[in-house]
Amino acid sequence: MSDLSSPNWFTEQCENTGLALSLRIKHKVVEKHSRFQKIEIYETTDFGYLMVIDGCTMVSTRENFLYHEMMAHPALFTHPNPQNVVIIGGGDCGTLREVLKHDSVNAVHQVDIDALVTQMAQTYFPELCERNQDPRAHLIYDDGIEFMHKTLPESLDIIIVDSTDPIGPGEGLFNRAFYTSCLNALRTDGILVQQSESPILHQKLIKEMRQAMLEVGFSDVQTIPFPQPIYPSGYWSCTLARKDGEFGEFRQSDAETFSKQTEYYNEAIHQAGMRLPSFLKKVL
Amino acid sequence: MSDLSSPNWFTEQCENTGLALSLRIKHKVVEKHSRFQKIEIYETTDFGYLMVIDGCTMVSTRENFLYHEMMAHPALFTHPNPQNVVIIGGGDCGTLREVLKHDSVNAVHQVDIDALVTQMAQTYFPELCERNQDPRAHLIYDDGIEFMHKTLPESLDIIIVDSTDPIGPGEGLFNRAFYTSCLNALRTDGILVQQSESPILHQKLIKEMRQAMLEVGFSDVQTIPFPQPIYPSGYWSCTLARKDGEFGEFRQSDAETFSKQTEYYNEAIHQAGMRLPSFLKKVL
Repeated sequence: MSDLSSPNWFTEQCENTGLALSLRIKHKVVEKHSRFQKIEIYETTDFGYLMVIDGCTMVSTRENFLYHEMMAHPALFTHPNPQNVVIIGGGDCGTLREVLKHDSVNAVHQVDIDALVTQMAQTYFPELCERNQDPRAHLIYDDGIEFMHKTLPESLDIIIVDSTDPIGPGEGLFNRAFYTSCLNALRTDGILVQQSESPILHQKLIKEMRQAMLEVGFSDVQTIPFPQPIYPSGYWSCTLARKDGEFGEFRQSDAETFSKQTEYYNEAIHQAGMRLPSFLKKVL
Repeated sequence: MSDLSSPNWFTEQCENTGLALSLRIKHKVVEKHSRFQKIEIYETTDFGYLMVIDGCTMVSTRENFLYHEMMAHPALFTHPNPQNVVIIGGGDCGTLREVLKHDSVNAVHQVDIDALVTQMAQTYFPELCERNQDPRAHLIYDDGIEFMHKTLPESLDIIIVDSTDPIGPGEGLFNRAFYTSCLNALRTDGILVQQSESPILHQKLIKEMRQAMLEVGFSDVQTIPFPQPIYPSGYWSCTLARKDGEFGEFRQSDAETFSKQTEYYNEAIHQAGMRLPSFLKKVL
């Protein structure tokens, strides 16, 4: 136990959940401060590079595929023909890379407030940035709330909110005003998807998000759990909201073919994700 | 970070995986030593009671349902008519409770080497022991390897190996000699299921287990991942082996009805579990 206080471990301690997670590190590679947050890169012994923002683990080389695939593909395969996508946050460009695997997509605007996140991803996670030069990709460094407020009505098919936790810069992305902007910006069949923390630790937050989404006028919501080894509890989720219609069907056979391009997502995982376990259903 | 060296956190540090997991505790309730191992009970701030064996987290009040359901139900719903079940290990009685939810089951022998585990479960996890008085339940304190070696050939439908990690007392449960005993003890349609560690951390072990099972004569194997918030990486697995036939179908409609009695398991989760993510398929 004592070793954890040594400089050989990076620990994220979640005071509000009673859990802490530590990764063994070789050394801290760099620490930079932007106008918005502190960003650190560690080299770990077993998970490759690790990006930490304001003390919270964000992404490691070894396991980020789980999160990035699940932030992108369930929403994109629920939409009949996703063409115009916006990513709010997502500065490490991993979600962007996944979205650009979809041939139907014409344009993706990634709007992260902090250019430093992307700069550091380009250096330490180049594999996540490998599609940044795709002519369909547009990297914008701006406030996501403002951006969404100014977006033309009925202009988007998919909005992906790939943000930090609902504290600090991410806070304004978890409320009715923001969800209303998203709803207005979506076309018919449009889908909003947002990272929604741990299904076992943050049930209250997930419940509030879903309620807020429905209250501003989304017609249906769907929370999908997935594994996330370096976030507290190792069990994470995204929550999808539809502008119209209900969740149920998705482009299952397209998803099956597509799963050659993914490490985790496939149509059976999507199907199971839509069937909430009882313990979650009871709470939500 | 410093707090973790204080007495307010219990930490399991996995030297071979570069991860550590900590639960915040109110206090250590009791520590006992059996002939086999050291067993500790902590009261945590957020996860109820926590049982720790030889320094490894075993079960907490809040999340054990995930593991226990997945150790029991995928195997039992793959078998057409499971009647005679043996659990090797499983002294906390959580898997036993799940097995006894199946009406087809006539007898369950739980064979844990250490009576102290069950005694402590009865005190601190009474909900896991609530079916111990079921006339179909037989609690035996003996060596599981010996027990399986002596079991009559073709007498069992399901063998569940709910053991500690493959070090210490659990070690002999992960090899060809033991798998051969299991294969002989199973009837036609028989299934062996064993906890098989983390799909992201222990791929070599899972691969070796599967190979050993096939080499001794099992006809097919199936690894099923599931969330496990208090084990390293939060992502765990069980591996099933069939005496004959192949994995594919299971009693899906029975599983759907049954899911009223479960918190996590349902037929969609079973279905998805049978479809390995690409990253695992590549390794296995």
